[in-house]
Amino acid sequence: MRILGIDPGTVKTGWGIIDTNGQDMHYVAAGVLKQKSGSHISNRLLYFYQELIKIIEQYHPQSCGIESPFVGENVRSAFTLGKAQGVAILATAVKGLPTAEYLPNLVKQRLSGYGHSTKEQLQITLKFLMDNADLPNETDATDALAIAVCHHLQNEMEGLKEY
Amino acid sequence: MRILGIDPGTVKTGWGIIDTNGQDMHYVAAGVLKQKSGSHISNRLLYFYQELIKIIEQYHPQSCGIESPFVGENVRSAFTLGKAQGVAILATAVKGLPTAEYLPNLVKQRLSGYGHSTKEQLQITLKFLMDNADLPNETDATDALAIAVCHHLQNEMEGLKEY
Repeated sequence: MRILGIDPGTVKTGWGIIDTNGQDMHYVAAGVLKQKSGSHISNRLLYFYQELIKIIEQYHPQSCGIESPFVGENVRSAFTLGKAQGVAILATAVKGLPTAEYLPNLVKQRLSGYGHSTKEQLQITLKFLMDNADLPNETDATDALAIAVCHHLQNEMEGLKEY
Repeated sequence: MRILGIDPGTVKTGWGIIDTNGQDMHYVAAGVLKQKSGSHISNRLLYFYQELIKIIEQYHPQSCGIESPFVGENVRSAFTLGKAQGVAILATAVKGLPTAEYLPNLVKQRLSGYGHSTKEQLQITLKFLMDNADLPNETDATDALAIAVCHHLQNEMEGLKEY
């Protein structure tokens, strides 16, 4: 089973892919799509959409986890984050991938047992789970890998081994 | 100049198309795309995206106005509305349409001179502007037509006659 994790944003969108075989997990690829915050929202969303489609066509994931960001209290920020989220969901839907959204605290909890672990703790856990693979340094890429792992563990927990 | 107006939502998305020739405006078409609120967000976003692409391919608009909804104080609602907004923006970007977003009060203000006119007042104004055309009854469709008119008037005001 190959799983894609996406951490969507309107300036940076992280992506990460893992292979799983029951409990074993292997790192496949990860990266960060970047756009200038000053460029028009249409151009940014189009770029993220087209790049996500390319990644799905290149790596052929079979299932996808998308981080549903912590939206804080600012409604305009939440609205803007929703735009990137909608485009990420759409890219997976266009390619026929089953997709689930995960809140950041659930991702942390699945990986390290509680919802408030630090970025460093998450990275150590990820590296351990991925058999000490040489993971990318960029936080958005490792966050996306963490989402892919969370999606796998969540599905295992729910007994949806053929998701 | 043919203009598309979109009023995006995650359950209903209104669309409306007008032709303009300087000050004259003519009604072309309008409608409402509907989905069940209980169906998965992936399916709803995919449906709205595919239908908007079909509408653009059928009517060949040259420019687009999208309503940026009043997001209230609920951050989760704002985040959800953002998803529909992102997909509408993406559909126009994929088809190469220049697009602008308008807040509801600006749409009302452009059409009737102030930002708090009623739905009924807006419909009367629209019918007058459209040479008494037989407009659809559904609010989401007429809202979308109002956005198309607002986009035209806004561009006229800004002197961007070749937008």
